[in-house]
Amino acid sequence: MPDAVSSAPLPTHSRPVRVVLDAMGGDHAPSNEVQGAILALKELGSNVELILVGREGDVTPLLAKHQGSPSIRVVHAPDVVGMGDEPSSIVKTRRESSLYVGLELMRQGLADAFVSAGNTGGVMATATMLCGRIPGVSRPTIGSFFPTKTGRPTLLLDVGANVDSKPKFLSDYAVMGSVYTELMIGISRPTVGLLNVGEEEGKGTEVTREAYGMLQTNGVNFVGNVEGRDILAGTVDIVVCDGFEGNIVLKFAESILGFLKDRFRAYADRGLVQKLLIGAFRPVLKSALRDMDYQEYGGVPLLGINGVAIIGHGSSSPLALSNMIKRAVEMVRKDVNGTIQKALATPTGPSKEPV
Amino acid sequence: MPDAVSSAPLPTHSRPVRVVLDAMGGDHAPSNEVQGAILALKELGSNVELILVGREGDVTPLLAKHQGSPSIRVVHAPDVVGMGDEPSSIVKTRRESSLYVGLELMRQGLADAFVSAGNTGGVMATATMLCGRIPGVSRPTIGSFFPTKTGRPTLLLDVGANVDSKPKFLSDYAVMGSVYTELMIGISRPTVGLLNVGEEEGKGTEVTREAYGMLQTNGVNFVGNVEGRDILAGTVDIVVCDGFEGNIVLKFAESILGFLKDRFRAYADRGLVQKLLIGAFRPVLKSALRDMDYQEYGGVPLLGINGVAIIGHGSSSPLALSNMIKRAVEMVRKDVNGTIQKALATPTGPSKEPV
Repeated sequence: MPDAVSSAPLPTHSRPVRVVLDAMGGDHAPSNEVQGAILALKELGSNVELILVGREGDVTPLLAKHQGSPSIRVVHAPDVVGMGDEPSSIVKTRRESSLYVGLELMRQGLADAFVSAGNTGGVMATATMLCGRIPGVSRPTIGSFFPTKTGRPTLLLDVGANVDSKPKFLSDYAVMGSVYTELMIGISRPTVGLLNVGEEEGKGTEVTREAYGMLQTNGVNFVGNVEGRDILAGTVDIVVCDGFEGNIVLKFAESILGFLKDRFRAYADRGLVQKLLIGAFRPVLKSALRDMDYQEYGGVPLLGINGVAIIGHGSSSPLALSNMIKRAVEMVRKDVNGTIQKALATPTGPSKEPV
Repeated sequence: MPDAVSSAPLPTHSRPVRVVLDAMGGDHAPSNEVQGAILALKELGSNVELILVGREGDVTPLLAKHQGSPSIRVVHAPDVVGMGDEPSSIVKTRRESSLYVGLELMRQGLADAFVSAGNTGGVMATATMLCGRIPGVSRPTIGSFFPTKTGRPTLLLDVGANVDSKPKFLSDYAVMGSVYTELMIGISRPTVGLLNVGEEEGKGTEVTREAYGMLQTNGVNFVGNVEGRDILAGTVDIVVCDGFEGNIVLKFAESILGFLKDRFRAYADRGLVQKLLIGAFRPVLKSALRDMDYQEYGGVPLLGINGVAIIGHGSSSPLALSNMIKRAVEMVRKDVNGTIQKALATPTGPSKEPV
């Protein structure tokens, strides 16, 4: 990073945090992106400098409609990566896309963080290839927060960045998740469980059995195996798993609201009383299940890359995009990456470090 | 089997089907078991002969309280396997348990089917070791039905019988699931999906990539990869996966109702209107989610063993146990095992066979 190192203990950046927003990422781009940027700027003020990357001809007129947004710069990128585009090919064939250009700005040190509601796999693959990994990290990971009975969210990771994870990957997910949860959610020494088919130590696959031993010595607050039911029960703060089952559980969870709506619609069709009851109940149900879908929560972090990247659902609202920008700023300010690096170098656990 | 082979086309057994019920299996044993047996007998009449295996001193007095149950025999077994007992050790160290004695009756040809609300892993391990597999089956499997948007259930398998499944295991789960769904649910040429992290053919783990090819040629109606969201959407009739993720998804699904109840309780605490609304809504919710929990559905089959075994939740009600007995009788009558054997021998698919 080209900026002078501050002598203050925590905020490594005392200047504004420079956040690139992929203006063409989401399903309603660039309109939602421009509105989200303006929302974030109103709240963060001089704490942030925003760079919108995308088609200048589309973005600038939208920005001009809004007053008082002098801190938003636009960087032109003519190409747009779609949701169906092959993630691994972007770095070679889509160098004029907003996704690539935005991440390249971060790689060059011209931005501190990158935010996108675009192609999740594309951001992950391109960010990893361009920016590289934090020293000590075997594989970057994407986590997702689940609501729980206790009201305290559970972070499940990995939810799809890597399949066929080796035991060391799972161990690293636990370290990264612990640092993130401690710094960003404010939970001291968060508990970690290994997702498995039973609680006993010998349960599971070859990979989980080996990972169990590593989790006992890598410095995290490991409490043992947990099962599928423990995610919503909030038994632990962090649930570690391979991206294969993590992705399946996440997509299953995201489908529950739609499933229940359909069931209730059938019930409502039985008569007027039923219809009124369902109508009254719908907002309650929606609120209870809302944070199961990460679009509403406002994006998930890609952990382990040299840089800060927040990825949101394609249908992210302006508010969700604004939340993503705020989260990116916070991740930079709290030096999540530096703390991950230290935690992986000294396996006594993140919170025993004098951060 | 010692009985004479019938010349009729479908019902291989024209005499009553002999079903062993593990009288000591469930959490409310033997009371629920005895009541379940009597319920089943009332409905099935001379179609069934029931053998209750368990502590004679506990079972016989309960039976005596009910009139008109002459077809129920009691076989004494002094020992009881608990839910926490190690499955693999039962066959060596628990030979006087109701679980072992009951399965041994089936192995000897003295019973056609075995039903238990006891230790799932114990039934599976002991049944596999005692009775062996249907010729051609690489691994027996346990499936579970999920409710879907379409109203037609989806069978997910494996849900925990085997972890680290090889591609051939997944292929066999698909064949067994297809036969079961066709014969027991009445769906002709049921569709099969491979649980994965994306729809494209190359997605997933080494195992899923190899399984994909096998599923295209093993005779089932394979439609490709499906994702976590496709289970409740009812995209396919059968979803095939390793028991590791199948078990995690099943336990996650079973935890949803409890999670929502807790969320709604918090909402109800806000005031009287909210309390009334939640109270009115609770039965609707319960009905919508009920069949997500296999205790209510009435047990799941262990497919692939030489014999018929139905396993239910520990808290199975008398009605659930009665349903399990009825299902066991149906599996025997419809010769599910014989059809599985034929389907595995001739990979042109179960429904092209002149069954």
